Amino acid sequence: MAAAAPPPPPSAAPITLPESTPTGQTLFTRIRLATILDVPHIHNLIHQMAVFENLTHLFSATTASLSATLFPPNPPPPFTTFTVFLLELSSSPFPPTTTENPHFTPLISSIHLDLPITDPEKETFKSGDNDVTVGGFVLFFPNYSTFLAKPGFYIEDIFVRECYRRKGLGKLLLSAVAKQAATMGYGRVEWVVLDWNVNAINFYEQMGAKVLPEWRICRLSGEALTAYGNLN
Amino acid sequence: MAAAAPPPPPSAAPITLPESTPTGQTLFTRIRLATILDVPHIHNLIHQMAVFENLTHLFSATTASLSATLFPPNPPPPFTTFTVFLLELSSSPFPPTTTENPHFTPLISSIHLDLPITDPEKETFKSGDNDVTVGGFVLFFPNYSTFLAKPGFYIEDIFVRECYRRKGLGKLLLSAVAKQAATMGYGRVEWVVLDWNVNAINFYEQMGAKVLPEWRICRLSGEALTAYGNLN
Repeated sequence: MAAAAPPPPPSAAPITLPESTPTGQTLFTRIRLATILDVPHIHNLIHQMAVFENLTHLFSATTASLSATLFPPNPPPPFTTFTVFLLELSSSPFPPTTTENPHFTPLISSIHLDLPITDPEKETFKSGDNDVTVGGFVLFFPNYSTFLAKPGFYIEDIFVRECYRRKGLGKLLLSAVAKQAATMGYGRVEWVVLDWNVNAINFYEQMGAKVLPEWRICRLSGEALTAYGNLN
Repeated sequence: MAAAAPPPPPSAAPITLPESTPTGQTLFTRIRLATILDVPHIHNLIHQMAVFENLTHLFSATTASLSATLFPPNPPPPFTTFTVFLLELSSSPFPPTTTENPHFTPLISSIHLDLPITDPEKETFKSGDNDVTVGGFVLFFPNYSTFLAKPGFYIEDIFVRECYRRKGLGKLLLSAVAKQAATMGYGRVEWVVLDWNVNAINFYEQMGAKVLPEWRICRLSGEALTAYGNLN
């Protein structure tokens, strides 16, 4: 990714090392609650996910439908319904957090890069006025365990843009949801994985998750579902 | 189940057939939104489910924890969060519905029984002042499809008490959720089933559901989850 020009040194010096070198660079990260202003980015990210999964024929979300369903008028408090965390990236440190939302303080961190990242979509995913790029998102919502009589979170989607993958950013997003669940005293965080995706399964197990081998998802949708609307 | 005494015939007649016979009896059904007053029944039903699944060691719900999490103060509108439909049964027709909740009109139906049912827990599951018994419940809540940009419903639990099983009552409960989803224009109803439960899978497929063979549930819970609360 393109780096902001470093400030000039306070005084001239015969030899100065570059602030970033090919063998060491810092990528600053911030995870924050998304707002309705982020919908164009969220829409782009979901579309990229559909492309990645070869499922564009199932993709029918629009910015209007996402706005209406994720950010309705008079929204309930965060975490009580569909919630999106956005992952922002910058080559400069993020400023101290202002109180943008009383329910969630953005999580600021950084990762070390051995090589700089070239982001071919940096302009498309620009966030705000500064050198900040949207790198991914996670969408989750409450679920409920009757045995525990406790809510939990279900993660519907977790996605990191291609050029930022395999750097621990997915783990940051998943950890952010787990941290929020633990902070709220929730009982579980759940999500699903494809059974042949051994790398993902290993990754999730390293994060402390258990894969439940016997359960299968049942889905009623399309015409089979709408037919029930006519029942007495 | 015990039947209410039939009203006397309008005039004496030399021969009257009994209103119910061992070869033909009607069980009247009503599906309505549960309220906080139903929590003792819900708690009993969840416990019976834990016994049925040999999972009582995982059962820690109390009436207090169920009340606090399912029926909090200032509850959001029905269907926007954890929602319970209660199945009530009676040998007498249910009275016409009064407007108990503007968001949902109870679903009234009936099923034919070849033989009367003896309910050993009729008193425990008595609902209200009349000859009404709680026979089961379904707990569900909204989920979300990013591809559709639409909510759906996820069914966490569906349960019918033992003496009322194999009579189509589970189908009534599942259909009630599907009908509500279709009415609200939602995209999907989902739930999970154990892969060895062939009878259940056949039943769900007959109802129009598809079983997704490749997806596995990942769960982060217990100490593995609480550890994330300490992350920076």
